[in-house]
Amino acid sequence: MPVRPPIAGLDLPGVYLLRSMEDSFAVHTHLEAQAPRSAVIIGGGYIGLEMADALTHRGLSVTVVEHGASVLKNFDTSLGQHVAAELRRHGVQVVSGVGIEDIVQEGAQLRVGGSEGFSTSTDLVLVGVGVQPVTDLAQSAGVTLGVRNAIRVSRAMETNVPNTYAAGDCVETWHHLLGRPTYLPLGTTAHKQGRIAGENAVGGCREFAGTLGTQVVKVFELAAARTGLRDTQAVEAGFDPLTVESTYWDHKVYYPGAHELRIRVTGDRKTGRLLGAQMLGYWHGEVAKRIDVFATALFQGMCIDDLNALDLSYTPPLSSPWDPVQMSAQAWVKQNR
Amino acid sequence: MPVRPPIAGLDLPGVYLLRSMEDSFAVHTHLEAQAPRSAVIIGGGYIGLEMADALTHRGLSVTVVEHGASVLKNFDTSLGQHVAAELRRHGVQVVSGVGIEDIVQEGAQLRVGGSEGFSTSTDLVLVGVGVQPVTDLAQSAGVTLGVRNAIRVSRAMETNVPNTYAAGDCVETWHHLLGRPTYLPLGTTAHKQGRIAGENAVGGCREFAGTLGTQVVKVFELAAARTGLRDTQAVEAGFDPLTVESTYWDHKVYYPGAHELRIRVTGDRKTGRLLGAQMLGYWHGEVAKRIDVFATALFQGMCIDDLNALDLSYTPPLSSPWDPVQMSAQAWVKQNR
Repeated sequence: MPVRPPIAGLDLPGVYLLRSMEDSFAVHTHLEAQAPRSAVIIGGGYIGLEMADALTHRGLSVTVVEHGASVLKNFDTSLGQHVAAELRRHGVQVVSGVGIEDIVQEGAQLRVGGSEGFSTSTDLVLVGVGVQPVTDLAQSAGVTLGVRNAIRVSRAMETNVPNTYAAGDCVETWHHLLGRPTYLPLGTTAHKQGRIAGENAVGGCREFAGTLGTQVVKVFELAAARTGLRDTQAVEAGFDPLTVESTYWDHKVYYPGAHELRIRVTGDRKTGRLLGAQMLGYWHGEVAKRIDVFATALFQGMCIDDLNALDLSYTPPLSSPWDPVQMSAQAWVKQNR
Repeated sequence: MPVRPPIAGLDLPGVYLLRSMEDSFAVHTHLEAQAPRSAVIIGGGYIGLEMADALTHRGLSVTVVEHGASVLKNFDTSLGQHVAAELRRHGVQVVSGVGIEDIVQEGAQLRVGGSEGFSTSTDLVLVGVGVQPVTDLAQSAGVTLGVRNAIRVSRAMETNVPNTYAAGDCVETWHHLLGRPTYLPLGTTAHKQGRIAGENAVGGCREFAGTLGTQVVKVFELAAARTGLRDTQAVEAGFDPLTVESTYWDHKVYYPGAHELRIRVTGDRKTGRLLGAQMLGYWHGEVAKRIDVFATALFQGMCIDDLNALDLSYTPPLSSPWDPVQMSAQAWVKQNR
């Protein structure tokens, strides 16, 4: 279920917490019936930014308020800042470093107030600040909970109650690189876990290989994608990380429509092992599946230098003879010398 | 240099063999100066189809004549037929199973004649039927030649003449899966070989990991991509191949702009090992970098079923929670039971 932040006025009409299909139908009905002209979105994560994109396309004037220093907090700030610029370029007001404190009815509008003297009037408020597992029923049935009160499961997706399996946003997620359970509620992971839980529940013998935290989000004309560890996570996991950012064209610049593609590669200084990657580029620049080349290499424990041996596809409208994935690997290796 | 097929009249004005920068400048000058209204392209490989796309965009009426049964012969026919349909949808005449025999001047035009009674008049003829290595100089210097008279090189890119290295379209190419040299002149491979030859020439110690035959070509609004072995090659290499074709949306169909994505997966029946993949879809449907997920998995020797464990990126405008790569893997596994 959605995290319900400590903000006064969350139950006022025109305020919606984003999580379920019902939430989205309710927002849609509100948009149709009330024709709001402005919206404040609390939370600059991928759900908040997707809503900012969608509502701007519907003609609303949108403000995104993010508690942290930058939107898309699970990307490094240098990329988050470009995402913020893309939002502003499309007329979205981006406010960061502000915690919302209260929402009050003010005539036909809502007044949203927060730290740093933030105050604005709006027609609609959407709240997307994360989700938490709903595990009361499981707990009352004797199921052990783990990270962030998610259901503790084995790699076979079995709970501590024999023959009882669990999967999805209510369970812990094994991290392929960290080698420990995390809480990472994503649809891709839920599908994989569900398949394994189902197969094992009928007598199968599968183990969940674990997540790499791979994600992509489209924000207006940009796609931001990531996989694996960032510096701070890598240090926690005992690595000595180096992250190198470099920028390329997403295809040969002599072919029309080339856009900049920023890649941040994280690897271990000592072993040269790939630990993670982040990418930001034009949403038709094959960002999503380029991060998947990194994700596949990461899954297989490849070293960054070995990415240069991969036989990746090239045609001038879509890539370069050295794919940007490989050029970013070369930049990392050069800087690690 | 370009293969010069046994066709009478190749030296007539208005007939161009495609290979070098000079060839392309000459064609460009001809287009500007003569303003031809029609063109016959001999050869339905990727160069021929890229020219068909480009000349159609310039307003010429284009005919592609292919000797074989289908265009894009290094793809399976079921995909080649969709590419032919895409060419026809954009007004290109596609003639297959015809070998061109002669070109004769006929007033201001060229008459192109071939087998099966083929005969047509045109303003411009382009010939793109492959390339061959130019190795006379090397041979006269005592360098041993190999496959198709390309220069024989070790995995270190060294010729039989000590301290003499060679790379690019003039050399044999080691095949990562076949475990033997082939002739596969591609820009991606040339770049990798050149880097290794250069590094070793100055005292380095690298080996070329080999090609997988990864390729992508854009033809109008389609991209066709492939990597690894097709059935016939797999049989030659001692495998027991099964190829399964399946079709998906390239992203969630509820998000605007979804297109069909056809995937053919080839694997070994006994071991379940991935041997190759071919893909055809909308050129902005991330076809090129999706084939690269297969290429990365192939390079690492993965089994098809294990593709389902990969943590690939998902957002509704760009993929599905199970990426089409994974759904095609599931289709293969199901059919191999």
